[in-house]
Amino acid sequence: MRVAIMGSGGDAPGMNPAIKRFVEAAFAFDMEPYFVFDGLEGLIDERISKASYEDVAGIIHRGGAIVGSSRSERWYEYKYRKKAYENLRKAEIEALVVMGGDGSFKAMKLFLEEFDFAVIGIPTTIDNDIFGTDISLGADTALNVIRDAIDKIRDTASTFSRAFVIETMGRECGYLAAVSAVTSGAEVCVIPEVSFDIESATKILKEEIKRGRRYILAVVAEGTGKTEEIVKWLKDDIGMETRLSVLGHIQRGGNPTVKDRLLGSGFALESIKALARGDRDRVVVYSDSRFSTLSFDSVLSQKYIIDEEILSMLNFSG
Amino acid sequence: MRVAIMGSGGDAPGMNPAIKRFVEAAFAFDMEPYFVFDGLEGLIDERISKASYEDVAGIIHRGGAIVGSSRSERWYEYKYRKKAYENLRKAEIEALVVMGGDGSFKAMKLFLEEFDFAVIGIPTTIDNDIFGTDISLGADTALNVIRDAIDKIRDTASTFSRAFVIETMGRECGYLAAVSAVTSGAEVCVIPEVSFDIESATKILKEEIKRGRRYILAVVAEGTGKTEEIVKWLKDDIGMETRLSVLGHIQRGGNPTVKDRLLGSGFALESIKALARGDRDRVVVYSDSRFSTLSFDSVLSQKYIIDEEILSMLNFSG
Amino acid sequence: MRVAIMGSGGDAPGMNPAIKRFVEAAFAFDMEPYFVFDGLEGLIDERISKASYEDVAGIIHRGGAIVGSSRSERWYEYKYRKKAYENLRKAEIEALVVMGGDGSFKAMKLFLEEFDFAVIGIPTTIDNDIFGTDISLGADTALNVIRDAIDKIRDTASTFSRAFVIETMGRECGYLAAVSAVTSGAEVCVIPEVSFDIESATKILKEEIKRGRRYILAVVAEGTGKTEEIVKWLKDDIGMETRLSVLGHIQRGGNPTVKDRLLGSGFALESIKALARGDRDRVVVYSDSRFSTLSFDSVLSQKYIIDEEILSMLNFSG
Amino acid sequence: MRVAIMGSGGDAPGMNPAIKRFVEAAFAFDMEPYFVFDGLEGLIDERISKASYEDVAGIIHRGGAIVGSSRSERWYEYKYRKKAYENLRKAEIEALVVMGGDGSFKAMKLFLEEFDFAVIGIPTTIDNDIFGTDISLGADTALNVIRDAIDKIRDTASTFSRAFVIETMGRECGYLAAVSAVTSGAEVCVIPEVSFDIESATKILKEEIKRGRRYILAVVAEGTGKTEEIVKWLKDDIGMETRLSVLGHIQRGGNPTVKDRLLGSGFALESIKALARGDRDRVVVYSDSRFSTLSFDSVLSQKYIIDEEILSMLNFSG
Repeated sequence: MRVAIMGSGGDAPGMNPAIKRFVEAAFAFDMEPYFVFDGLEGLIDERISKASYEDVAGIIHRGGAIVGSSRSERWYEYKYRKKAYENLRKAEIEALVVMGGDGSFKAMKLFLEEFDFAVIGIPTTIDNDIFGTDISLGADTALNVIRDAIDKIRDTASTFSRAFVIETMGRECGYLAAVSAVTSGAEVCVIPEVSFDIESATKILKEEIKRGRRYILAVVAEGTGKTEEIVKWLKDDIGMETRLSVLGHIQRGGNPTVKDRLLGSGFALESIKALARGDRDRVVVYSDSRFSTLSFDSVLSQKYIIDEEILSMLNFSG
Repeated sequence: MRVAIMGSGGDAPGMNPAIKRFVEAAFAFDMEPYFVFDGLEGLIDERISKASYEDVAGIIHRGGAIVGSSRSERWYEYKYRKKAYENLRKAEIEALVVMGGDGSFKAMKLFLEEFDFAVIGIPTTIDNDIFGTDISLGADTALNVIRDAIDKIRDTASTFSRAFVIETMGRECGYLAAVSAVTSGAEVCVIPEVSFDIESATKILKEEIKRGRRYILAVVAEGTGKTEEIVKWLKDDIGMETRLSVLGHIQRGGNPTVKDRLLGSGFALESIKALARGDRDRVVVYSDSRFSTLSFDSVLSQKYIIDEEILSMLNFSG
Repeated sequence: MRVAIMGSGGDAPGMNPAIKRFVEAAFAFDMEPYFVFDGLEGLIDERISKASYEDVAGIIHRGGAIVGSSRSERWYEYKYRKKAYENLRKAEIEALVVMGGDGSFKAMKLFLEEFDFAVIGIPTTIDNDIFGTDISLGADTALNVIRDAIDKIRDTASTFSRAFVIETMGRECGYLAAVSAVTSGAEVCVIPEVSFDIESATKILKEEIKRGRRYILAVVAEGTGKTEEIVKWLKDDIGMETRLSVLGHIQRGGNPTVKDRLLGSGFALESIKALARGDRDRVVVYSDSRFSTLSFDSVLSQKYIIDEEILSMLNFSG
Repeated sequence: MRVAIMGSGGDAPGMNPAIKRFVEAAFAFDMEPYFVFDGLEGLIDERISKASYEDVAGIIHRGGAIVGSSRSERWYEYKYRKKAYENLRKAEIEALVVMGGDGSFKAMKLFLEEFDFAVIGIPTTIDNDIFGTDISLGADTALNVIRDAIDKIRDTASTFSRAFVIETMGRECGYLAAVSAVTSGAEVCVIPEVSFDIESATKILKEEIKRGRRYILAVVAEGTGKTEEIVKWLKDDIGMETRLSVLGHIQRGGNPTVKDRLLGSGFALESIKALARGDRDRVVVYSDSRFSTLSFDSVLSQKYIIDEEILSMLNFSG
């Protein structure tokens, strides 16, 4: 049985450990592993090749993905999806493991509805916004990259008397911002999930400044669209010299953490096990410390909710 | 209600985030937080002082523990435990939160049997050998420190044609070694929990060398006592120039990871909640993504077992 | 003899090692060390205190500066400079060591012209734009922080087929950008010192893309004001999906490198030696592997020039 | 003109940036670059191949050396050196650039005496023990790796009341240990170049402990052979619980620092320039901020001396 792995959409640290384990587990289950390069674009353009042990030696500690990834507009035309299907049949590949986020899973659902094919999804996004899995591949490394950046910014914020606004990635999901605020002791955290009470925050911060607070760290999720507003507020209402730091794409890179290497390995192993069991339409999820699978439908029909424990810790933040 | 926090036994990254949250959560629950310095030794010698917000500002990213820690022989004489109890009474402290491992929990159990006092334990050890909790405070940072070290050693191992034996901490528990081997793609992993089949390993490695393998990484848990034996085996039987790297105490240090900061915060918050509920003899544990508590007895009466998923991944390791 | 140290203007990693050595060296030369807190603002407001060994224990690895820093507008009114002078006299301080950049040195020159006082400057700026010294305190750490960021961005750039524009700090000086481009193998480098030939660059890049180049890294010094232009060029003329990463204030933070710790130590020791010799108006510089001193005048009257060797290496960059 | 690059002896971070620049500079000077793999062993066994731009893309941030290295006993038999010479002639290679330390330079000197060939040396060793160059390739990265390790150990040392002995590499040269002690604020530093006055150290430390010192860091160069003695002294005479950390091979690995990337680039560029000038027997050195060359003889006939400034700073250490 020939099985292929590919990336799709935004990249995330941990894809390489997943690719490595995919190849090893495929051989262990007597399957033949293949790579699809450059995501759905590569699938359409038939960039497919056989994978070997040698291909995945020495990649476990590298960020990014050796198979590449892409965002594809062509995919949303039927003729290209058909082309993709034909490419897979031609290569005698019977199953596809796709590392991606919600957008990529929607793209695969479309494919599954039209063609008789086995597809297994691996939740892969630093945004950590996928329903059914406590954590997605890449989020732990992104959080630790953000931690490093905030630790550096705290150095300079505390030397001066300054406010710093740090914008994290995460689109509509405030996970990265919320966890970063809790674990960096940020005074302010603005995320889409929680309405930010600017009046009460103003009162608290002004009192703290009166009592001696020298600097303020504010973490803002890009998805709130409130970054500029918070900068203006700290400058004008709180009255502090304020600097903005948009962390940007460094959040997607970096040597994967142990957690992401382990998750990548586990997700890949489970995807092979699912295929060995005959699954044809599943997403591997990690919940309550266990791997299991859900249908693409159930993953896509619900919204990821940040753990209450984390949100509750925001209350004492500072 | 006055509540005190202390460290005991080996230190671990994440203690400072726990101390910070302990102080904040205590105030939030209308308790008065105190520090006991230098572990049980400090408790005996009455090194106790009131804690404030200022004490815990800017400590979240620092390894070690601002309250210190110690190993105490005096504790095992009744008169010193009585002295400790009297010191706490004198300071009008009603509850003690202890960050420590199995040894420290045993020490506290002794105390609980003799004196009417509230004690909450926080599982704190890089060894990750405490029953009832999926992970102990400090283990995630230790794993990432080991990852960095092995990534560096792989650089030099791959430049030469060499075998490297890396000894990790962990006493009787192979958790650090097993996870490190899986996530670093080490070829060999020797832990107390699994018997190492030297004959089969010899056969596999010799074949791989014949097929082109240039270097070997072997991760050995110190608790196996087999480090020298593995070095000798790689040198004499496998026939490779072999180097030993004993990672040692760098594994205990370092800026805590996001996971350990989150765990430290969560453990501390739960310990305060437990005290608020009137608990007097509990260890906070983290299992299946949730915090809960167990009695000291139940934690101490059973042995931590490494997750099957991790051990199963060792099979494909390489 | 009482001597004080202070920060002024932008902060830079390495100030804490300098402060530590300043205190130790002062004691070794039988001087009494003092701190002025929060830069010129603190000098005006008399935030001055005696320094001890204890104050500088355990600070060598911390970014920022324990004495703080500031930018001061009041300083440019005579009455505040007079106030500062009187504060120093009152505290019986006879000499001031100032860690700062060109702006701070100008501020001190003004002071030296009006008052009879000993001032020694330590070139402190990540921008590395001070005449007479091969390297300023903080630049080496900033370069390594930029290196880490570009290494992370390369991960994601190479996974996709993308161009990345990385904007570094440096005001009118292209040092950080030029060295970063050379040492990160960036394809494009735009700095104020060298005119960027966009036509020739377009031709070269288009050819390379035809031959298989998948991604482009472009490092742009903020002082060129050309960041947006380069983004547009890569997108529209080169035809690549392009992302911008403004590194911002993470460049000022972080655990100082060995080089910056050594420089900080050396600068501080030289400043004490200069005071012991009776110098009253000098900047310590590091050139051709040796510390020496120049007058504030000579440092301020000339412009720092990037080493030819570095610029010449830009030619082969890619 | 065909020119080849190779590694020899111990590896060091920065070799990959040197290899990259070597290839680029060779093309820029209209030479044809070649690789010799696995050091002198590979030269004897004819592991030689043409180098291309593609071979050196994306290697600048990787530790180790893509061309490998080795220590060779066969080299010291004439027949193998002759074989090496014939291999080079056969491949029509006219010049060899060798990245290595003193041992490798001696090996090349032997070769130069017997055969008419052009050889350029690049001082490559973390030990930094080569005469004529202020710094060797790899030393800056090694120092920063040691810094990280000592920062981690300080965390745990300060939590307990403990002494830590940290053994660094460096053979007969105390450079790594001395610079690490200065820049980490270690209380004790033991190197081959300076006799360690144990009596005076005992007196000073005992006084400091009486005044409140909680922990001691001692850095010992492996070349002194005194590691165990210092551990015993701290334990028995100073009376502190003492732990030993032998840093070992992590010192050779890791992502090269900006300094080592710049040095690697510079050394490689100079080696090509030297060959373009017709040099046939030179080592590139970096001294007083400039690259220049010396004959193998002059480099080998003198001993590297640690800078007085560094040794003088040891006096205030603590």
